[in-house]
Amino acid sequence: MDTGAAVQIPTLEDIRDAQRRIAGAVRVTPVLTDPDFNRLLGCRLWLKCENLQRTGAFKFRGASNAVARLQENGIDGDVATHSSGNHGAALALAAASHGRRARVVMPEGSSPAKVDAVRRYGGEITFCQATQAARESGLAELVAAGCVPIPPYDHPDIICGQGTAALEFASEHDDLDVIMVPVGGGGLVSGTAIAAKALIDGISVIGVEPEGAAETALSMQLGQRITNFRVNTVADGLRAVIGTLNFRIVMQSVDDVLTVSDSGIIAAMALVWQHFRMLIEPSSATVIAALLSYPERFADLRVGVIVSGGNVDLESLPFDSRE
Amino acid sequence: MDTGAAVQIPTLEDIRDAQRRIAGAVRVTPVLTDPDFNRLLGCRLWLKCENLQRTGAFKFRGASNAVARLQENGIDGDVATHSSGNHGAALALAAASHGRRARVVMPEGSSPAKVDAVRRYGGEITFCQATQAARESGLAELVAAGCVPIPPYDHPDIICGQGTAALEFASEHDDLDVIMVPVGGGGLVSGTAIAAKALIDGISVIGVEPEGAAETALSMQLGQRITNFRVNTVADGLRAVIGTLNFRIVMQSVDDVLTVSDSGIIAAMALVWQHFRMLIEPSSATVIAALLSYPERFADLRVGVIVSGGNVDLESLPFDSRE
Repeated sequence: MDTGAAVQIPTLEDIRDAQRRIAGAVRVTPVLTDPDFNRLLGCRLWLKCENLQRTGAFKFRGASNAVARLQENGIDGDVATHSSGNHGAALALAAASHGRRARVVMPEGSSPAKVDAVRRYGGEITFCQATQAARESGLAELVAAGCVPIPPYDHPDIICGQGTAALEFASEHDDLDVIMVPVGGGGLVSGTAIAAKALIDGISVIGVEPEGAAETALSMQLGQRITNFRVNTVADGLRAVIGTLNFRIVMQSVDDVLTVSDSGIIAAMALVWQHFRMLIEPSSATVIAALLSYPERFADLRVGVIVSGGNVDLESLPFDSRE
Repeated sequence: MDTGAAVQIPTLEDIRDAQRRIAGAVRVTPVLTDPDFNRLLGCRLWLKCENLQRTGAFKFRGASNAVARLQENGIDGDVATHSSGNHGAALALAAASHGRRARVVMPEGSSPAKVDAVRRYGGEITFCQATQAARESGLAELVAAGCVPIPPYDHPDIICGQGTAALEFASEHDDLDVIMVPVGGGGLVSGTAIAAKALIDGISVIGVEPEGAAETALSMQLGQRITNFRVNTVADGLRAVIGTLNFRIVMQSVDDVLTVSDSGIIAAMALVWQHFRMLIEPSSATVIAALLSYPERFADLRVGVIVSGGNVDLESLPFDSRE
């Protein structure tokens, strides 16, 4: 797949097209707020709950759009990806919804919950060694066998699908001062930035990364995409390096990328459980951790965050709910 | 408080008044559906997610209405109740929202999560022995000391508050064939029955009880309120005996009360986690268990269920999420 400099940056209209394409398949997720939580944070916060999206993550939006585009373009065949996380399950369900099969290369040692999710939606798993090279060669074999590769973030169709969450959000809350999302491979942040900047005058788009996977923040500072960052964070969904197209969009449309500690992430998960009775992934809790870590930046502002996913492993929650 | 035969059964208009009274305090909870889950169940299901209500349960609606009525009527003072569950936390927050203090009599051995919740919302706890007599005498002492008692279900203000969930539900989905809710003390089912029957032509209102707390189903069969049922169920929120006013409403407006097994309840909790990434209480899972236990009754129908709460103890979930 071509994701180089030649690829055009998608527009708001492309995201609107994606929304029409995936309407009916994706869930219009709820937006929640809580006065006690707002008092604690010192700002006015709305949560766009993609943890309640089908497959438990926003990833289903992008995967649905990518598979629907194949249908439109008359491209048949199984779809394939490599994934240790939510993209695999999302692609499995998106493919099944169109009568296709998804083949997912997963590293050995992937969490049982993620493996189960891919299988539940009818995906077929090929296990590989837990290295980037093994994942890529596993995928290359499937592509050589005729599968259509669907990348997790570095593609306009994925970015446009992910951008539909911000489209829904802005249609309900068109006066946000800030919209904030986690940054991993950059699918969500780039789609969000395109939609939010086009729809809401003067809005700031802020990404959040764990300190242990803060290569995008560093890349922004240096003005070039760093790919050899040594990653170490509890936020398993954010360990990816930002994609090339995604990074171009971030440089153009994202105002800032903040970083938060793993302990802040875990504390934020516990707070969201207390105030909303939702279990959110560590990756999703980064945005709440940022509000707690940089209170002066958000004081009294109207802040929208996209809660990216809820696929936590119930058997190994990182916080003590009794505290 | 008078809850005898003389109390008038509330009307739809009373529930609309409650809705106006508590607007802004209660959260308008989302309604979710899922095509895969519908396929599994063989019906079209919508979940009204009171697990995402403030304090994690519909109970906040009734408590908010009851406290707001005190304000309207110029009745000052602390409020009080006895509760081992969600009503205590709901009353604590409702009271705090009006600048009052809630005093809650809780049996020793109450779950730490429930104790924490009452305290988090500013409630003051008095522990008592784990008997009904000790709970009632604990409350009587608080009332003697000047507190205003707010009962958990057997009161028109509570019933009207709980009925606002069905009011919201019907405003979004006015063509349901069935609305189904769990039955404990009967606050939710009676408020739901009044609202749903008045708003949706031909709708069936169905209550669900665990087999181990099926005194309402038995009471309906016998035409009289059974109070000495030996209770044993995992659904801790449904162990109460139905109230007297509540039972009158049930006899008048509820079409049926179904019973489900504890194992069915636990399996339903796991299914909701899988399909919606929401942890719901065992009490709430009864309605899903009923859909699975009586599929022929619901085949192809449009079914609305009110998911009553999400206050589960993360440290002792009754299902294995990896299955």
